[in-house]
Amino acid sequence: MIKVAVNGYGTIGKRVADVVAAQPDMEVIGVSKTKPSAEAYIANRRGYPLYIADLQNKPAFDRAGIEVAGDVEEMLKHADVVVDATPGGVGMKNKPLYQLLNLKAIWQGGEKHEVADFSFNASCNYADALNRQYARVVSCNTTGLCRIINAVDKAYGARKVRATMVRRGSDPGGIKKGPIDAVVLNPPTIPSHHGPDVQTVLPHIDIVTMAMIVPTTFMHMHVVHIDLEKAATREDILALIEEHPRMGLVRKGTGITSTAELKEYALDMGRPRADLWENAIYEESVSVVNDTELYLFQAIHQEADVVVENIDAIRALMGTVEDAAESIRMTNEALSFTAI
Amino acid sequence: MIKVAVNGYGTIGKRVADVVAAQPDMEVIGVSKTKPSAEAYIANRRGYPLYIADLQNKPAFDRAGIEVAGDVEEMLKHADVVVDATPGGVGMKNKPLYQLLNLKAIWQGGEKHEVADFSFNASCNYADALNRQYARVVSCNTTGLCRIINAVDKAYGARKVRATMVRRGSDPGGIKKGPIDAVVLNPPTIPSHHGPDVQTVLPHIDIVTMAMIVPTTFMHMHVVHIDLEKAATREDILALIEEHPRMGLVRKGTGITSTAELKEYALDMGRPRADLWENAIYEESVSVVNDTELYLFQAIHQEADVVVENIDAIRALMGTVEDAAESIRMTNEALSFTAI
Amino acid sequence: MIKVAVNGYGTIGKRVADVVAAQPDMEVIGVSKTKPSAEAYIANRRGYPLYIADLQNKPAFDRAGIEVAGDVEEMLKHADVVVDATPGGVGMKNKPLYQLLNLKAIWQGGEKHEVADFSFNASCNYADALNRQYARVVSCNTTGLCRIINAVDKAYGARKVRATMVRRGSDPGGIKKGPIDAVVLNPPTIPSHHGPDVQTVLPHIDIVTMAMIVPTTFMHMHVVHIDLEKAATREDILALIEEHPRMGLVRKGTGITSTAELKEYALDMGRPRADLWENAIYEESVSVVNDTELYLFQAIHQEADVVVENIDAIRALMGTVEDAAESIRMTNEALSFTAI
Amino acid sequence: MIKVAVNGYGTIGKRVADVVAAQPDMEVIGVSKTKPSAEAYIANRRGYPLYIADLQNKPAFDRAGIEVAGDVEEMLKHADVVVDATPGGVGMKNKPLYQLLNLKAIWQGGEKHEVADFSFNASCNYADALNRQYARVVSCNTTGLCRIINAVDKAYGARKVRATMVRRGSDPGGIKKGPIDAVVLNPPTIPSHHGPDVQTVLPHIDIVTMAMIVPTTFMHMHVVHIDLEKAATREDILALIEEHPRMGLVRKGTGITSTAELKEYALDMGRPRADLWENAIYEESVSVVNDTELYLFQAIHQEADVVVENIDAIRALMGTVEDAAESIRMTNEALSFTAI
Repeated sequence: MIKVAVNGYGTIGKRVADVVAAQPDMEVIGVSKTKPSAEAYIANRRGYPLYIADLQNKPAFDRAGIEVAGDVEEMLKHADVVVDATPGGVGMKNKPLYQLLNLKAIWQGGEKHEVADFSFNASCNYADALNRQYARVVSCNTTGLCRIINAVDKAYGARKVRATMVRRGSDPGGIKKGPIDAVVLNPPTIPSHHGPDVQTVLPHIDIVTMAMIVPTTFMHMHVVHIDLEKAATREDILALIEEHPRMGLVRKGTGITSTAELKEYALDMGRPRADLWENAIYEESVSVVNDTELYLFQAIHQEADVVVENIDAIRALMGTVEDAAESIRMTNEALSFTAI
Repeated sequence: MIKVAVNGYGTIGKRVADVVAAQPDMEVIGVSKTKPSAEAYIANRRGYPLYIADLQNKPAFDRAGIEVAGDVEEMLKHADVVVDATPGGVGMKNKPLYQLLNLKAIWQGGEKHEVADFSFNASCNYADALNRQYARVVSCNTTGLCRIINAVDKAYGARKVRATMVRRGSDPGGIKKGPIDAVVLNPPTIPSHHGPDVQTVLPHIDIVTMAMIVPTTFMHMHVVHIDLEKAATREDILALIEEHPRMGLVRKGTGITSTAELKEYALDMGRPRADLWENAIYEESVSVVNDTELYLFQAIHQEADVVVENIDAIRALMGTVEDAAESIRMTNEALSFTAI
Repeated sequence: MIKVAVNGYGTIGKRVADVVAAQPDMEVIGVSKTKPSAEAYIANRRGYPLYIADLQNKPAFDRAGIEVAGDVEEMLKHADVVVDATPGGVGMKNKPLYQLLNLKAIWQGGEKHEVADFSFNASCNYADALNRQYARVVSCNTTGLCRIINAVDKAYGARKVRATMVRRGSDPGGIKKGPIDAVVLNPPTIPSHHGPDVQTVLPHIDIVTMAMIVPTTFMHMHVVHIDLEKAATREDILALIEEHPRMGLVRKGTGITSTAELKEYALDMGRPRADLWENAIYEESVSVVNDTELYLFQAIHQEADVVVENIDAIRALMGTVEDAAESIRMTNEALSFTAI
Repeated sequence: MIKVAVNGYGTIGKRVADVVAAQPDMEVIGVSKTKPSAEAYIANRRGYPLYIADLQNKPAFDRAGIEVAGDVEEMLKHADVVVDATPGGVGMKNKPLYQLLNLKAIWQGGEKHEVADFSFNASCNYADALNRQYARVVSCNTTGLCRIINAVDKAYGARKVRATMVRRGSDPGGIKKGPIDAVVLNPPTIPSHHGPDVQTVLPHIDIVTMAMIVPTTFMHMHVVHIDLEKAATREDILALIEEHPRMGLVRKGTGITSTAELKEYALDMGRPRADLWENAIYEESVSVVNDTELYLFQAIHQEADVVVENIDAIRALMGTVEDAAESIRMTNEALSFTAI
């Protein structure tokens, strides 16, 4: 059993913990939190030992009736690998401690590539991650782009990728961030940083991206345009998506044409926290123009798609499973991950 | 086993079906749908026999790969009781068919009181519902008001109730209804219809209500003001809420001050579809001014609070459980319903 | 003075009336409304004779204290030209009446091309509209696309246009339409109908468009990608936009990166109803990649950009001004239309 | 002519400047800004001398092509009175400078009562403000409450006031603040701070308030419940509102039942920036229950209602107009302020 510590039990961390706990070959040895909160109660309820950054804050947890197992350093000492899911930028500050403890570590896309000098996506570069000390799982948007681009590139050659990201303004549980009634160019310059971030995983891809933020809370919507080297039909692309273990088709028959209906469907399917770990590609949108121009809409669940990548990253770093496909299969199976 | 048919497998119907299926003393013998949809796929996936309004539409279901068991009349013939969860106004049109089949029936709050001549809330008037042919479970807002008003009235006397309902504009899965950026008085007149609707269950209560709609999708927020006959302390009221099987306190320690954070918590707790079947009363808001003026905020999950009431209504109409508390206990237990 | 009747005094009609009234060579001889409303009061306040569809409804207007001048047919008899700004689809039904009265007519983009057999944009095909009986001013999105595409095409050749439209869900004054919290693919298929609609004005353009709806009320945001025949620099394109009478740059110095800030700026500038009649192109976004790939973000005020086009269409149909540039200049000048 | 400096040219400051400029007895001698921005351009465009906090930042203004007249201290030296419209909390820090210059000053409701030791509302306590050195114009919500409470109290006696404020999440031009999809209790405790703030103006009023924030940008909605000492009819209250110079009725005949439609109406009326300086009370909502319980909905434009109060505060502090009614009349007349 791989002993996994989850440093930062928030939006991503709480999901990573649950998915780790569901795997046959790994266990959660602890999660961390800085302040008493709803999520701290949940950690107790789930039975994950809860460690805190600073033991001086223990009285506040005691008053709230939340059990504390010790401090974060204590947690890390017992781990084989740490998944750092702290807020963007904090992860870099944690690195010296991981180095000191000679601990394998996985960061999220909120950190720069340089934190690990290796950016990870299970479908693209699992083999390169084997037995590394560090890896950075790329952000939700980059993960979603890498999956479709790499799959299309391997089958038909991706001559050029042009993509627009229409991003959610806040996570569903957030109450502070807007906008309430605006489209915000983020950034107002073109191209956005997403293209270079894709290139940390797929360096040879010619990609230009644009991004904006809109007043919605669940899922980013990507408009993906790929010019192909080799002609393909719409059916070819649909088949390629269906075969991919981390992409799913939103079937025309469901009548789903939005993100809200898709979330409702995820809840109806019984997915925990409505999580969509796969790229949700709208079947009706997939189209090929002039034989070599591919267009499609894909929804990316910002809270979920990277979670399964973290699990594969754990196996790659630990070197316990050599084959990407086998790790992906194990991760998906533990989640009873079935087609959308 | 009580054989339950669910006519209308939408927002309420799909939840009623799942909660019926979880009970030890009842089973779902069929659900109905008029057109192929995401929810029709879910019915198949859950294993509920799917009946359709008009068999002439069966080819459309066949094409979508959705299995159909027969038509609605067929379903009703095999049922002991039907829960009608069709859109508001349609339920009244279905009544002659239920009469013809001599079938016990339960309607939702979208229908008028007259559809059943009896409006139901398990905590208020279960005994009066025993062995009736028909009942109408009052709407989500009315259910939420009845629970708190009746509890306070029995303990301290509710001299006057003044309540404001800040309502969600659309259900989370909806994409058509707004508003996007407005507060809509609905109705613009005072009082709103909610007061008289409470009086269908609690006729003696002096109540004035006001209502508006805001651009949010999850939960209505009630501002409840009750003038008490007898003085009470804040602690008295908190105790009363804690003891109630259908009300829960949103603890200060969780840091939750909104509907969005509450939904996140419900998902984290593993509640199916984030359902909050109980009144979610914000602990910090409960206050007593001048000894006899009670104020509190309560969030009401519009998709969920009436679902458990339907289950109790089934037992009351069938006469299989005589005691309200016992039925409520059974319903809650089957859901592993634990404190928020 | 050209006598203009405005049939339908709603979002577009009320703006057309005000802009007609501001011109030196035309006057509003009447506007129409079917029911008493806030806008009917405004018509009275502005001094526009108010005609109603059906004189049987006059008592309702009388009761509301709104003055009525007669029925719509009466209004049309006194007009040289009618601007039909009735809801989409209604305009087609009005055509026989206009034919009967041998009245020149202008429809909006909610009608099909066939209503007039001529689709109009002042910057693109004013000359072809001279002395025609009928014209259809294309929709707000199509107008915005035609302006930029035609300008770029004439200067550098538009080899291919690929555009994504992120559309507002409802107008600011609307309270019924959503979505509240969703991105809705509209349509879910690719390409959308906007490309063919551009081709009703610019038939030779190779264009593929995609569209979605988001929860905001003010302005559509376009992501425009044009492959150029001839190389251009960013500065070339900025100059081209600055010189265009119906396009404006949102300057980097303003710090404006969104639609909401742009509306605030329009209000601060004193624009009536915050109207932005021009394409609002974000200066920072304009970029040329690989010498011949042009990218930019442009915001299109759905309530306003077509309004000025209607004015030019009036002059073209009446044949009073032969030159497009001269009509555009007159229209703009009357509005004290100055750079964003 | 009273020489007015506006320190802080943002949401409130830019409006105060325009309304000062419209008065016959006062002039804007300068406005201030800390950084180049869209609003700084507007100040130049309007011809208001623009002063900046720190002359070291002048090069940034120069680069943006924005003219700077000097630093803030320079501006203040030439003023008779300063309206401080800096962000909440900053105004207190500016006080020593105003004291040093022996300058009369007016702060906004974002500051505490103690900043001026006198909280102002023209309709309630103008006479007490005469010739004072300092005043604080209470916040938008408090201003709206004071107007209706004081009017009702003077005519019928306000025995108890119970009010709920449903507040907008962000101003229309804001893009950072949410919530996007939530009702946020703010504060989650009852009562909110608004009651005590009303008492800074009307100390004898028995008032309990509750407040929440919703995802909308334009106007707060108040549910006002006042128990009267003397019986009144609905018509009595409507007459009282109609006669009040700072309250207006949203007529039933307009069909307006929301904030969005009201903003549209304000724009259609030609109000600058859609500003509603008066309490907008929905005619249909005004109701009296049991002879002495008054209920109504009023919308409060958070950006505008305090603006006119600042103008009256200027006259009161300067002592140039002794009578409240006369100052209010002058302010309103300069705005061509007519009934909603």
